[in-house]
Amino acid sequence: MEKRKYNALRELLLRGSKDQIQEAIDSIHPADILEVIHEDPDNTKLILEKLPDDTIADIIEEEDDEDDQYDLLKQVLKDRQRGVLDEMSDDEIADIAGELDEKEKNELLAQLDIDDKQNVEQLLNYDPETAGGLMTTDFISIHAKNTVLDTLNYLHTAVDEDTPKYYLYVVDKQGVLKGVVDLRAIVASPFDTPILDITNENVITINYKEDQEVVANTFKKYSFIMMPVVDDEMRMLGVIEIDDIMDVIEDETTEDMNLMAGVSSEERVDSTVGESFKSRIPWLIVNLLTAVMAAAVVANFEGTISKVVSLSAIMSIVTGMGGNAGTQSLTVLVRGLSLKEIDKDNALRIFFKELLVGVLSGVVIGILVALGSVFYAGGNPWFGVVAFFAMLLNMICANIAGFIVPVILEKCHVDPALASGVFVTTVTDCMGFFFFLGLATLFLSHLM
Amino acid sequence: MEKRKYNALRELLLRGSKDQIQEAIDSIHPADILEVIHEDPDNTKLILEKLPDDTIADIIEEEDDEDDQYDLLKQVLKDRQRGVLDEMSDDEIADIAGELDEKEKNELLAQLDIDDKQNVEQLLNYDPETAGGLMTTDFISIHAKNTVLDTLNYLHTAVDEDTPKYYLYVVDKQGVLKGVVDLRAIVASPFDTPILDITNENVITINYKEDQEVVANTFKKYSFIMMPVVDDEMRMLGVIEIDDIMDVIEDETTEDMNLMAGVSSEERVDSTVGESFKSRIPWLIVNLLTAVMAAAVVANFEGTISKVVSLSAIMSIVTGMGGNAGTQSLTVLVRGLSLKEIDKDNALRIFFKELLVGVLSGVVIGILVALGSVFYAGGNPWFGVVAFFAMLLNMICANIAGFIVPVILEKCHVDPALASGVFVTTVTDCMGFFFFLGLATLFLSHLM
Repeated sequence: MEKRKYNALRELLLRGSKDQIQEAIDSIHPADILEVIHEDPDNTKLILEKLPDDTIADIIEEEDDEDDQYDLLKQVLKDRQRGVLDEMSDDEIADIAGELDEKEKNELLAQLDIDDKQNVEQLLNYDPETAGGLMTTDFISIHAKNTVLDTLNYLHTAVDEDTPKYYLYVVDKQGVLKGVVDLRAIVASPFDTPILDITNENVITINYKEDQEVVANTFKKYSFIMMPVVDDEMRMLGVIEIDDIMDVIEDETTEDMNLMAGVSSEERVDSTVGESFKSRIPWLIVNLLTAVMAAAVVANFEGTISKVVSLSAIMSIVTGMGGNAGTQSLTVLVRGLSLKEIDKDNALRIFFKELLVGVLSGVVIGILVALGSVFYAGGNPWFGVVAFFAMLLNMICANIAGFIVPVILEKCHVDPALASGVFVTTVTDCMGFFFFLGLATLFLSHLM
Repeated sequence: MEKRKYNALRELLLRGSKDQIQEAIDSIHPADILEVIHEDPDNTKLILEKLPDDTIADIIEEEDDEDDQYDLLKQVLKDRQRGVLDEMSDDEIADIAGELDEKEKNELLAQLDIDDKQNVEQLLNYDPETAGGLMTTDFISIHAKNTVLDTLNYLHTAVDEDTPKYYLYVVDKQGVLKGVVDLRAIVASPFDTPILDITNENVITINYKEDQEVVANTFKKYSFIMMPVVDDEMRMLGVIEIDDIMDVIEDETTEDMNLMAGVSSEERVDSTVGESFKSRIPWLIVNLLTAVMAAAVVANFEGTISKVVSLSAIMSIVTGMGGNAGTQSLTVLVRGLSLKEIDKDNALRIFFKELLVGVLSGVVIGILVALGSVFYAGGNPWFGVVAFFAMLLNMICANIAGFIVPVILEKCHVDPALASGVFVTTVTDCMGFFFFLGLATLFLSHLM
């Protein structure tokens, strides 16, 4: 939102009268009101008090985080909460309720009318990370026997202003999904067109048990904006809309990035100190074990280092550069796996590409490190030989590890991002020290 | 797609007759045909030959990568390409043309009819990473003077079956956008409702010059599935649809992940050896310079190491653990910045959180490293003292760097992900060696 428009809106919300706000409310997007609330959280109560129930419901639905949604609801005066909840969709209420403890949940459910309460309780039975947890039960089902005109007449009377959707669903008496009708086909077809003529009977459906990542991939594959959710008998349960899928994609990406770095999938930038500590310490401890392995390699060569102490400065370059190259190849691989761009057909080709890139980078970086080492060692060319081959071998290992670690994790049905950074740098640290100090030991007489 | 369904479709496409395919084509989603083509690229020509022009156009539009779209088009017999292009939308053709060299582009444009050619050439003038580059010029504009019934009658005659959209746009004689009408409002309103009553005049628009990342954020903020693109005089130029935005979000995320690891934003898992090498070597060389800095720190303390050689094994643990902790905090920060979850109000709080998490992890990991060091040094407690404080200080530095590096990059209007991993590990390597070897030098007499 532009600064000027934002300031005007803020002014209206904070200092405008209830009537002034009421008059303007139709031309204000709830997401903009939410922006004002986010920037000025101390005035939340004051702002919400002047807004009608349905606007407050819209604002709460715009908020992404369930805890923040509940906080907003609690800022509404007790006697108005029921009215706000009445305007919210059942799946949003279920999402909020799913994050609450038993006592808060029951308080919330007690405020719903009997129908909504049943719906919400039903939705709460679904795992929130599945299609059932994502769907809303608000959808419009129609009969296939009618014409376009009949259907429009039905919509004029039946459609609640807040809940028309982009697709209508044809179901039989048992609730089994038989077809789907696009609103665009309804408006583009003459009034006497039988609905059956514009019904797509080859509906692509989602089972309610499907994992949300699979659901998101199906949406992306077919470029859908809405999909029906069915049970095992193809009975229609609800619909999933694209904006829920956008949230899923965002979450899954955050999880991938977190896991790669050894952070729990739940940690966010606004997590508390305790949450962040708990999220990170387990992988730090795993990393400590792997760092001890690398240190053990160094310890094995202490005799060599004590004789040529300048090796201790160069060795950290060999391991550091390997770690960097490994992370590069790992990142490309993890992203490729999560976008499903890697399959049986191209996996081998990608492996050899990584290998070759490792060789090429190893040669280039190896030469630079070798030259620097010779210079540092006062002109002794054997330092260059040791540094070059250690660097080259470690770069090759780095890129192989960057490929193999995520692919193996995926094969084991573990998220390929899972702490893969820790594993790859373990390889490059251990192998880097081993190659460099091993070669140095081999040519020790030339280095002293 | 299920295995059984996939196999049946593959069988039909490869071995079915043209007539058999024609009969079934309405019940097959083009994305599914594309899946068969992807898994069996050698038979692309054979499959495309049997399909009608509009299906081929749909398949090409389902393909995400512009180069692959062009490859598909080239697999179509020369004399049918014109027909296929005729069925494609102008913005898709422009996207493909934008990736071609001058000669190929002219060949492609020569096959278009005069109207399409003009449209495509117009679209090619827009930067592909802006709203103008994302939009399609296919949209329906209506007059606000009519009723719902008039509008439906107009749509029955005017709407090309392939291009109805979810919103209709009200424009004046100069083409200036005056309002937007939701198809859902059209079907839900009685026939005699004046269009003006269901027109939203507070349209949220996008300027054609807007960067695609800003466009994507606007879509996410308002949960839109379609938005109008206008010029500086608010004249309607086109519309952007949600599926293009999904591609933008995917691309921007890949770029973030790449940049963090020091990989060019363009590299993908299917890049060639040459592309990958060129994408990675610049940052490897930058990293080499920073690794040399860390090595220089070690070199400064060679005297200490030569006296207590077992320090060389422990020091790599201190730097490695710091690098890991820094990457953890960096990852959370970069993601938070790209999701716009960090602002003036919470930045300081997040900084102190990172600092505290650094202290806590530093104490825990520091104690473990100290115990290990004492054990390794045969019981000398001074090794523990040096290791503990070096580890604690480096963990604090790591988390501060993980916060500060991306925030400074963002302040400088550089992508906060840009090689931030390289910068953070430079800090943790240099500081880790400095703290550990510096403390060891200070207490050297107790360590010998």
